[in-house]
Amino acid sequence: MADSLPIIALTAGDCTGIGPEQTARILAEGKMRRLARLVLVGDKRVIEMGARQAGVSLDLRFYASPGAVDWEAPGVPMVDLGNTDPEAFEIGVASPESGRLTGETLARAIDFGKAGEIDAITFAPLNKQAMYRGGWRFPDEHKMFANLLGHTGLFSEMNVLEGQWMTRVTSHVSLRTALDQVTHSAICDALTLADETMRRAGIDHPRIAVAALNPHAGEGGLFGMEEIEIIRPAVETMRKRGIDCSGPYPSDTIYLKAFAGEFDSVLAMYHDQGQIATKLKGFNKGVTITAGLDIVFTTPAHGTAFDIAGKGVANIGAFEAAIGLATRIAARKLAARSAA
Amino acid sequence: MADSLPIIALTAGDCTGIGPEQTARILAEGKMRRLARLVLVGDKRVIEMGARQAGVSLDLRFYASPGAVDWEAPGVPMVDLGNTDPEAFEIGVASPESGRLTGETLARAIDFGKAGEIDAITFAPLNKQAMYRGGWRFPDEHKMFANLLGHTGLFSEMNVLEGQWMTRVTSHVSLRTALDQVTHSAICDALTLADETMRRAGIDHPRIAVAALNPHAGEGGLFGMEEIEIIRPAVETMRKRGIDCSGPYPSDTIYLKAFAGEFDSVLAMYHDQGQIATKLKGFNKGVTITAGLDIVFTTPAHGTAFDIAGKGVANIGAFEAAIGLATRIAARKLAARSAA
Repeated sequence: MADSLPIIALTAGDCTGIGPEQTARILAEGKMRRLARLVLVGDKRVIEMGARQAGVSLDLRFYASPGAVDWEAPGVPMVDLGNTDPEAFEIGVASPESGRLTGETLARAIDFGKAGEIDAITFAPLNKQAMYRGGWRFPDEHKMFANLLGHTGLFSEMNVLEGQWMTRVTSHVSLRTALDQVTHSAICDALTLADETMRRAGIDHPRIAVAALNPHAGEGGLFGMEEIEIIRPAVETMRKRGIDCSGPYPSDTIYLKAFAGEFDSVLAMYHDQGQIATKLKGFNKGVTITAGLDIVFTTPAHGTAFDIAGKGVANIGAFEAAIGLATRIAARKLAARSAA
Repeated sequence: MADSLPIIALTAGDCTGIGPEQTARILAEGKMRRLARLVLVGDKRVIEMGARQAGVSLDLRFYASPGAVDWEAPGVPMVDLGNTDPEAFEIGVASPESGRLTGETLARAIDFGKAGEIDAITFAPLNKQAMYRGGWRFPDEHKMFANLLGHTGLFSEMNVLEGQWMTRVTSHVSLRTALDQVTHSAICDALTLADETMRRAGIDHPRIAVAALNPHAGEGGLFGMEEIEIIRPAVETMRKRGIDCSGPYPSDTIYLKAFAGEFDSVLAMYHDQGQIATKLKGFNKGVTITAGLDIVFTTPAHGTAFDIAGKGVANIGAFEAAIGLATRIAARKLAARSAA
C-alpha cells in the first residue's frame, strides 16, 4: 500500500519565517503520512531549529536523495543539503542571503523531481522580495519553477480554498501591461489550464466564471469594449470546446456568487481583481498551486508571518491542506499512469 | 427645537423596486422624525402602493412644496407630483419609462433644494440602466445631480459603512481610461473631497489610506511606475497640506487593514478596486453619498432588489442609515451657518 502513495518533497521555506516550525510540527504529528510518503529536502540545522521552536522532537533519518529512502524504516526521511545555517540569520527579518538559500533548496528539490524521484513539492512560506534580492530574478516563484524545469508551455498560479479555485489571465505585471495582455488566446489558455488543473484534482465538471475587465462588465460598451470584443468571444470559443465557462461577469459581484457556491472557480483578468477578493475572503488560509508544470507545486497561501516567527504558535492548517492537495493530484496522476 | 432640525426630502426611488415599500415603512414607523423634518416628494399613488406592500398606513398631508409645509401639523407631509402611476409598470421589472419618472422626481426634489426649501435629499433605490434608457443620459446619478445643479467643481461618490468611508479617483469609465485619469491632480482632488466630506460628517481627523494602482504597489517599479511617479508624490503633497493620508498601499491588503480599524477611509484608483472590497464586505448594507455638491444626497447602497420587490419584506436599515447620514451632515451645516 505504502508503495503506491505519492512521494512529496517538503521544503521548510525561508528559515527566517514560520516555515521551519510548521514543517517540524507537521512531520512530528505524522498525520499526513497516511496520505503520502513525505521526504524533507533542506538543511538539518534548519529543521532542528524548527523542532525547537515548535517544541516537538523528530527522529530524522538521512539519505543522499529521495530515491534512496527506505520507506519501511522508521523516522522522518531527510536529504540534508547542508547549505543553510540558520544561526546566520535573524528570525523575523528578511535577508537576501536567506532568500538565495530558500531558492537553492527549492532548486535542489526540483532536480529530484526532474530525476523522477519525487511526485510533488510542497514548500513552506518563502519571501519573494528576499529571493529576488538574493539573486533569483523572477517576479514570483512560479516563473522560477517554470524556468528551472525548462517549461515553455502554459502555467499559472491558482489559489484554492474550500472548493473554490481562483486564477487569473495576467499576473505580476503593471496594470497597463495587463490590459495589453488580456487577449483572446490568453483567456483561452487560462481557461484550459484552470479546467485541466481542477479535473486533475478530482473535480469532474469545473464551473468557471470569467470576470469582466471594466466596471459593470463594460455596461454594454459604454465603459470599454474588451468584454464585447475579447472576453465574450473567448468564453464562447471555450464553451464550444467543452469547458463549462461563462461570463464576463461584473467583477464586483462575481466573487460573491462564486463564494456562495454558484461556481467552482473565477478567472480574473488581473492580479488585484482576484487578490482583493481572495485575501478578504481569507484565502491566506488556503493553498497556492502552480498549475501546468510537470511537477506539482503547492504551498500554503499565507506568508512568512515574521511577526510570529520563531514563537512556535504558527498554525499548520494551510500547510497541511497544501500537502493534501499535492497528494491528491499526484495520486491521480500515478493512478492514471499505472492504468495506462 | 423642531424648527432647528434639517429638512430632508425623501423620494421613493424606482416604483418597480423595493423603494416605495421601504419609504412607506420608514415614514409609518416615524423613528427618523426625532432627527429630521422629512418631506416626501413623489406621487401619492406610489407611496400608497408602498404602504399596501409594507402593510402600514400613512396619514399623508399634501403641500405644494416643502417650503409650504406646516411642521406643527400631524401626519406625513408630501408634495404630490402626480407624475407616476405605478399601475402602468410591472413590479420587479426594469422599465425605461419608470426610470425616466424616477429621474424626473429626483429633478423636482433638486429644484426644491436649489430654492433653499430642503437641506438634503435621501432617495430610495433606483435602477441606473432604466434611468439611462429612460433618457437620463448619465453614467450614474451622481453625474446627473451635478449636472442639474450646474456644479462644475469636484464631486464624487462615497460608500459608507460602520465608520468606513470608501471612495475612488476614477469611476464609471473603462479601466484603460481610468489609467489615464489617475493623475497627480485627480488624486489630490479626491483626497481633498474625501477629507472635507468626512469632516462635515463629524469625523474630526480622517485617516485616509491611498490604494496603489499596480500589483504589490508596483513592487518598487518592477510592475509599473505610477506609484513612484504619480501616487506617492500626490500623497506627499496632500500630507503637507494637512490631510492625514498615507500610501500607496497594495490594494489586496489595504482593505483588510482599513476594515480592521487602521484607517477611516480608503481611496481606490478605479471602480472595481473599491467595489470588489466593499461589496464583499457587505457595503450594500451601507450608505452611498454624493460628496461635494451643494445639496447633500444619500441613498442606501443596495439596489432595487427586484427579486423581493412588492413583497413587503425589504429591510430598511440601510435606508434609515442614509437618512441618518444626510441629517448629520445637514445639521452640522445648519449649525455652522447659524454660528456664522
